[in-house]
Amino acid sequence: MHHIDEHDKLIRALSRLPGIGRRSAERIALTIAHEKALLLEPLLNALQGVKDNITTCDCCGVITTHNTNPCAICSSTTRDKSILCVVENSDDILAIEKSDSFNGVYHALNGRISPMTGVRPEDLRLKELFERVSSDGVKEVILAINTDVEGDATASYISEKLATLGVKTTRIAFGIPADSGILYTDPITLKRAFNGRLPASKINLN
Amino acid sequence: MHHIDEHDKLIRALSRLPGIGRRSAERIALTIAHEKALLLEPLLNALQGVKDNITTCDCCGVITTHNTNPCAICSSTTRDKSILCVVENSDDILAIEKSDSFNGVYHALNGRISPMTGVRPEDLRLKELFERVSSDGVKEVILAINTDVEGDATASYISEKLATLGVKTTRIAFGIPADSGILYTDPITLKRAFNGRLPASKINLN
Repeated sequence: MHHIDEHDKLIRALSRLPGIGRRSAERIALTIAHEKALLLEPLLNALQGVKDNITTCDCCGVITTHNTNPCAICSSTTRDKSILCVVENSDDILAIEKSDSFNGVYHALNGRISPMTGVRPEDLRLKELFERVSSDGVKEVILAINTDVEGDATASYISEKLATLGVKTTRIAFGIPADSGILYTDPITLKRAFNGRLPASKINLN
Repeated sequence: MHHIDEHDKLIRALSRLPGIGRRSAERIALTIAHEKALLLEPLLNALQGVKDNITTCDCCGVITTHNTNPCAICSSTTRDKSILCVVENSDDILAIEKSDSFNGVYHALNGRISPMTGVRPEDLRLKELFERVSSDGVKEVILAINTDVEGDATASYISEKLATLGVKTTRIAFGIPADSGILYTDPITLKRAFNGRLPASKINLN
């Protein structure tokens, strides 16, 4: 075997990234070694940039820069701070922002309650959530939490606590995804779509 | 949209790596931003190590360090320098080394003759190959070049040139891969396996 320590180290570091297996890491590491100007330099600079500048927003938890903390969303003057959207992870914030479907502010829990993996309510950013709701004049909390056993349990936990604070709590709709077929939709989703039905005149397709 | 320049830059740098699409790059970049100690630091250090230390061997073309050039294979005293294995890319050297099937030395062409994509013989490390063969006491050249139209053309070109230098030239066998079924083998491979048949007593399965 032709071993080079630096090369092996890069393969190991790449293998730890999500979705990259050993074989992909080997292929990427070799390509990087051969394309220093085209691939290695930009990646190195980009990582250094992330290392030096990126952090998570102290308020909502989304990625932001050290210079902009609280983040651009939390410090925006055009967003409605009376509507707070709770998500499991800050990545969800980016997805919602991309969809341009919400103009309030966010709060990432950094996980969900999961007795199976030992995640308790006190391990999440729940204390911060309840503090924000109590002190920031929040009128509505929208739970944009995934719908599975743990997500549903987390949503229930939060809505019960918020009820004691007298804040309106809603949950985003679950139903048939856009451009999908009823024929191919799973039974749980169909059931939720029926339960969540609205008067046709009230449905906004934009 | 919640844009952060450093984050976008990392997504773009990751997207350029082989096998990583835009969606994977976004996922990796987010994970890296959240796991600085676990993922970012080791990757950054590993890339810096590759940048500072790794180069390609002046002799055979395999990756090596600046301190070990010519590489460990080329400068080994236990390897048979009279047998030279020619490969398309230096990555092939690593694959052959892993298989522990060859104890001579290598020469990477850095490509193959490809009129379609404009790669001419003079674009490859062919001049260096013929110089090595002429001056280094090479007795046999083994062509470990892939078998497709361009690979076959490249192998023919080299073997014709080497014939004029009076050097024995062989090509590695093409046939049924190990642990594979004849039923599932494509017609071209089967044809080559029949053409390349050997007396059963001569076949070495180790």
